[in-house]
Amino acid sequence: MRIDIITVLPEMLESPLGCSILKRAQEKGLVEIKVHNLRDYTTNRYRKVDDYPFGGEAGMVMQIEPVDRAISSLKAERHYDEVIFTSPDGEQLTQPMANSMSMLDNIIILCGHYKGVDQRIREHLVTREITIGDYVLTGGEMPALIITDAIVRLIPGAIGDEQSALSDSFQDGLLAPPIYTRPAEYKGWRVPDILLSGHQARIDEWRHEQAIARTRSLRPNLLKDMGLD
Amino acid sequence: MRIDIITVLPEMLESPLGCSILKRAQEKGLVEIKVHNLRDYTTNRYRKVDDYPFGGEAGMVMQIEPVDRAISSLKAERHYDEVIFTSPDGEQLTQPMANSMSMLDNIIILCGHYKGVDQRIREHLVTREITIGDYVLTGGEMPALIITDAIVRLIPGAIGDEQSALSDSFQDGLLAPPIYTRPAEYKGWRVPDILLSGHQARIDEWRHEQAIARTRSLRPNLLKDMGLD
Repeated sequence: MRIDIITVLPEMLESPLGCSILKRAQEKGLVEIKVHNLRDYTTNRYRKVDDYPFGGEAGMVMQIEPVDRAISSLKAERHYDEVIFTSPDGEQLTQPMANSMSMLDNIIILCGHYKGVDQRIREHLVTREITIGDYVLTGGEMPALIITDAIVRLIPGAIGDEQSALSDSFQDGLLAPPIYTRPAEYKGWRVPDILLSGHQARIDEWRHEQAIARTRSLRPNLLKDMGLD
Repeated sequence: MRIDIITVLPEMLESPLGCSILKRAQEKGLVEIKVHNLRDYTTNRYRKVDDYPFGGEAGMVMQIEPVDRAISSLKAERHYDEVIFTSPDGEQLTQPMANSMSMLDNIIILCGHYKGVDQRIREHLVTREITIGDYVLTGGEMPALIITDAIVRLIPGAIGDEQSALSDSFQDGLLAPPIYTRPAEYKGWRVPDILLSGHQARIDEWRHEQAIARTRSLRPNLLKDMGLD
């Protein structure tokens, strides 16, 4: 898989893409992540990528020309399955979306910045708009990282313990049950006896009950989606 | 405002905290952001912070001892309004939550990692669990960045043009209207005539209509929340 990220702040992405799972997935050749500086696609002397909005609103707007040039230059080299724009009014990112995107070959993620992007970019150049949630951020860079992380960790081999990914929250439509590790008692706070009992079948049953109970209490909509409530 | 982030991957946070708005807000003294390596609070020789889960599940679990030591050491120095844990089953981050958190004095954000954290951390040390959305990520570091960014940009003076933050999506409960900048025509794609008309009152009316229409089509629940639909 290949992910091309177009941004005005390439330096912001350096450390998150350069450590932990994302670093190892790239080193293992499971994913190629390329960050492109939008300013490299300008033709003006000041490498300016934004301008004032028509109609006199506050804030600056990302222009269509450099974005079109960046996307066209990438498309000239290979086919892209999606050109994703990170936008607060896009489709809400979900785990099933991450699952299906992890099976694509090549995607472009365009990071919005400033007040926003010229609407024509969204109408003519972007194929899919995704939001990571209903809150406002400084730019699209962190959402691009979130999308990248959510996708890449699902590529087989990206995380060490695949069983672990399978028992994550949401993968079976339920929140994960509580987990505990040593010490069995800390400041008087004890691990539930059942987990120390050694009865694997009862432990598994307890975990499933806990997962259902946590989901019912914290995310009842997930149970509704599964037809369980 | 002061934000203390506790993590096993301090290096992951470097570039996002060191550029753009978050950098400038720190330089201006609007916010102090301190990143703490959880391993500095271990007492074992290998600086190990995780162990196997009780009951034999896959994956490693973050232990309570170093987390307790890190939080206690911070609390000994000042009062904290919240100890936030970034968790997929936490309260969903929203713009109103970011607004209210931007008025706090001191917060701790604990980044989960590995398979998860010992449940006793969540029961006894954490005051608030927040998720940025229903999808699974490698760790809590990126969610901590998202929460930090959403909060810090709301501190007066953090973003240059305050009017711009006020007209963002969600701040008035509506999605933002489309915006355009030069050129007025690109590859035959034209900016709507109204925006070039110079009639500010009509432009404002058009924008409001567009905001309502976009919200109705893309996030009807927001209108319901406002009693508009």
